[in-house]
Amino acid sequence: MKGHLTHFDASGQAHMVDVGNKPSTARMAVASGIISLSQVSFEKVVQGDSKKGDVLGIARIAGIMAAKQTGQLIPLCHPIGLTRVAVEFELDDAKRQIRCTATTQTVGQTGVEMEAMTAVSVALLTIYDMLKAVDRAMVIGSVQLEEKRGGKSGEWRRNSP
Amino acid sequence: MKGHLTHFDASGQAHMVDVGNKPSTARMAVASGIISLSQVSFEKVVQGDSKKGDVLGIARIAGIMAAKQTGQLIPLCHPIGLTRVAVEFELDDAKRQIRCTATTQTVGQTGVEMEAMTAVSVALLTIYDMLKAVDRAMVIGSVQLEEKRGGKSGEWRRNSP
Amino acid sequence: MKGHLTHFDASGQAHMVDVGNKPSTARMAVASGIISLSQVSFEKVVQGDSKKGDVLGIARIAGIMAAKQTGQLIPLCHPIGLTRVAVEFELDDAKRQIRCTATTQTVGQTGVEMEAMTAVSVALLTIYDMLKAVDRAMVIGSVQLEEKRGGKSGEWRRNSP
Amino acid sequence: MKGHLTHFDASGQAHMVDVGNKPSTARMAVASGIISLSQVSFEKVVQGDSKKGDVLGIARIAGIMAAKQTGQLIPLCHPIGLTRVAVEFELDDAKRQIRCTATTQTVGQTGVEMEAMTAVSVALLTIYDMLKAVDRAMVIGSVQLEEKRGGKSGEWRRNSP
Amino acid sequence: MKGHLTHFDASGQAHMVDVGNKPSTARMAVASGIISLSQVSFEKVVQGDSKKGDVLGIARIAGIMAAKQTGQLIPLCHPIGLTRVAVEFELDDAKRQIRCTATTQTVGQTGVEMEAMTAVSVALLTIYDMLKAVDRAMVIGSVQLEEKRGGKSGEWRRNSP
Amino acid sequence: MKGHLTHFDASGQAHMVDVGNKPSTARMAVASGIISLSQVSFEKVVQGDSKKGDVLGIARIAGIMAAKQTGQLIPLCHPIGLTRVAVEFELDDAKRQIRCTATTQTVGQTGVEMEAMTAVSVALLTIYDMLKAVDRAMVIGSVQLEEKRGGKSGEWRRNSP
Repeated sequence: MKGHLTHFDASGQAHMVDVGNKPSTARMAVASGIISLSQVSFEKVVQGDSKKGDVLGIARIAGIMAAKQTGQLIPLCHPIGLTRVAVEFELDDAKRQIRCTATTQTVGQTGVEMEAMTAVSVALLTIYDMLKAVDRAMVIGSVQLEEKRGGKSGEWRRNSP
Repeated sequence: MKGHLTHFDASGQAHMVDVGNKPSTARMAVASGIISLSQVSFEKVVQGDSKKGDVLGIARIAGIMAAKQTGQLIPLCHPIGLTRVAVEFELDDAKRQIRCTATTQTVGQTGVEMEAMTAVSVALLTIYDMLKAVDRAMVIGSVQLEEKRGGKSGEWRRNSP
Repeated sequence: MKGHLTHFDASGQAHMVDVGNKPSTARMAVASGIISLSQVSFEKVVQGDSKKGDVLGIARIAGIMAAKQTGQLIPLCHPIGLTRVAVEFELDDAKRQIRCTATTQTVGQTGVEMEAMTAVSVALLTIYDMLKAVDRAMVIGSVQLEEKRGGKSGEWRRNSP
Repeated sequence: MKGHLTHFDASGQAHMVDVGNKPSTARMAVASGIISLSQVSFEKVVQGDSKKGDVLGIARIAGIMAAKQTGQLIPLCHPIGLTRVAVEFELDDAKRQIRCTATTQTVGQTGVEMEAMTAVSVALLTIYDMLKAVDRAMVIGSVQLEEKRGGKSGEWRRNSP
Repeated sequence: MKGHLTHFDASGQAHMVDVGNKPSTARMAVASGIISLSQVSFEKVVQGDSKKGDVLGIARIAGIMAAKQTGQLIPLCHPIGLTRVAVEFELDDAKRQIRCTATTQTVGQTGVEMEAMTAVSVALLTIYDMLKAVDRAMVIGSVQLEEKRGGKSGEWRRNSP
Repeated sequence: MKGHLTHFDASGQAHMVDVGNKPSTARMAVASGIISLSQVSFEKVVQGDSKKGDVLGIARIAGIMAAKQTGQLIPLCHPIGLTRVAVEFELDDAKRQIRCTATTQTVGQTGVEMEAMTAVSVALLTIYDMLKAVDRAMVIGSVQLEEKRGGKSGEWRRNSP
């Protein structure tokens, strides 16, 4: 049934669902999220790009490493041998926001959406950590799946706003 | 200097800053965040409360366990011996949102804001994971610090909107 | 030779044995274990089921997550991409015991017995942890393999007592 | 109240309880457990002692390392800076059993019982892993706390049988 | 291009490179390294072999376990399901050195060189840890790849000196 | 006795030694190590500094994060709440070498030498990983303690060569 929560069995008990009979297919997911900064902290990040402390470089590594730990953070997530992780940032000067986008890939029996979502979340948390000495009021938002491909349910794309 | 990024030294190199000379004080932080659901996935969570798969119970555990791993996820975060972690959820029927609030405490030389922020993020990611089979379009937002106490900078509270 | 300890080489040195030439087959294992409680702690668990603190729900999650960490806990165990983990509990009112059963599956070159055994052990340790404030004398016992399938040695079942 | 499960708050929600106000005292715990072997696997262990594959040496290291990971395995356990871990084994030839005893110590705000229980469990699981090629029917039992000292509740000792 | 750093994309951003389209082949790597000891600490290791504290046995286990954690230590390393890890030691009485050699294998889309290098490094660090009470001046050196096989680049061997 | 290996008890069994009675003092350690590169890979690193792939920035983060995991990598090492970690690099153009220096600090009952040694080792392994596509023959060497302070044994410095 379409509306069934697969992480629970018939009696409502949580389990890590059986994916052993699923075919191994190429899987891909893209997730994104935004952190909103104050003027002063936004400028610190821009300066960081010019080598006074590379905030985004460190956040990228944190996001990539977190993607590899997803199965140990999210209780019912299958462990996955990721074949690719990429984390990118875009700075929006007008809104003083940083947008993080993570792309994950594997060839396997289960999707990599959670790995992309986790990479985005931890990359943004790392930015928060490095800037919190100058700005505790930053807000992380719009953490969401943008796209996924592969598996039985095939392709999915977020509708444009 | 107020505007200095403490995670970088004078030459712009990242480091885990020295907190060894700071006094050990009682520390506390509260963070919160929201996940916005579709009608069908929101109802699954409500049912979960009535024992057909306890989505929030599992997300709570994931958040608490993630708080304990913060130092291994966030590159320049100090490892901290947390003395308390609590994760709570509120359901907003009108908006079909779940609000997660995490409270962390320790007695130590550095704050526990990142631990609270990480607990909220991973709890919300866990909700996403358990409901994504019925709703991939969920959005995580407003992940933010609400309050912190202790340390040199003392108390901080987010202004009411 | 049947009686050879495969975790040691010809000179008695420990190693993680080569499974690279084994065919990849469907693997499955079932393990179980028992925790014996006092009257007062047993009642706490039963109440937990009626929503005053869900001891078994938390122990189930702990067991599932531990199964995924088996390769990092047991020195010579191969890392395995589990495709399924399920942890179940039965309460025996007469004996005041909780029986935990874990089932693990994968498609791979090595068995999943240790993952099932580890899930049972950590689930029972978690029950102990949550009840130890009222009863330190609880005993964990009969942690054992019940069944395994797949691989060169094929099916194995514990004899009935 | 004596019969209260401290891992749950007043509304029955799990949390990692606040130990921040407890005094820091010297803490100690001893746990033990037994694995029962077949004749052939028991002899392998005895031989191992004479340097043809040191089963107990490896199990000891696995137990010590697992004690350090307890806070990441048991959901509501506080992270603890252990100051000592020791794991010992006794062989009972008549019963073909190995008895494992773990002793843990710290100076802190919370007890180290779970660390001792986890060390014993993982040490015995490691023995199982190394011998399972010759004997799948081994049983782990009598995993229990023997003694604990320190903290508000002071000393506790298991009654002699 | 032969001289391209694959861990960075065209714009110089770090990523975990896509190996999803590579064929799965048998992979193997051998790495080695040396620790140079003082007379007194070298003798401790030799004695250890005769059962007064098995320094090398513990270092071997540490190296094997570290190989399994490589993907979580080295930021851009792919997680790999190792099928074999072996760690060996040779003692050179004349030079008072211990040489550690690690061999790793898998069948997969990416090489296992880093796993072998990591096993060697952590095994030698463990020897350092156990002997540092008698000799802090020990030096770890010549940590290097000896050989690798499999994958597109095929076989590679270090030239003899 | 000066020549005693503290990681083993009187009967030669490994244990994590009791530091509970040691006073808590300020601890500091400095370790260093070198990686020797070919001409082509050395130039890649220099270019990396000018923003075409920041090899050293990533290695620094890997080293810092590894320092925090030392207690889980080195079997008998005590878990330590580090108060500071810094990792620095120097490039020697003439020798085509990169020298890594790590400084670790804490206030505690046991030293932080292993944390500094581990940070150096993993930082150098990370450099190896990022450059191995252009140069597999790189060698890591001279990984050694430079200095330590604090604790009963007080200050120690490596003699100049």
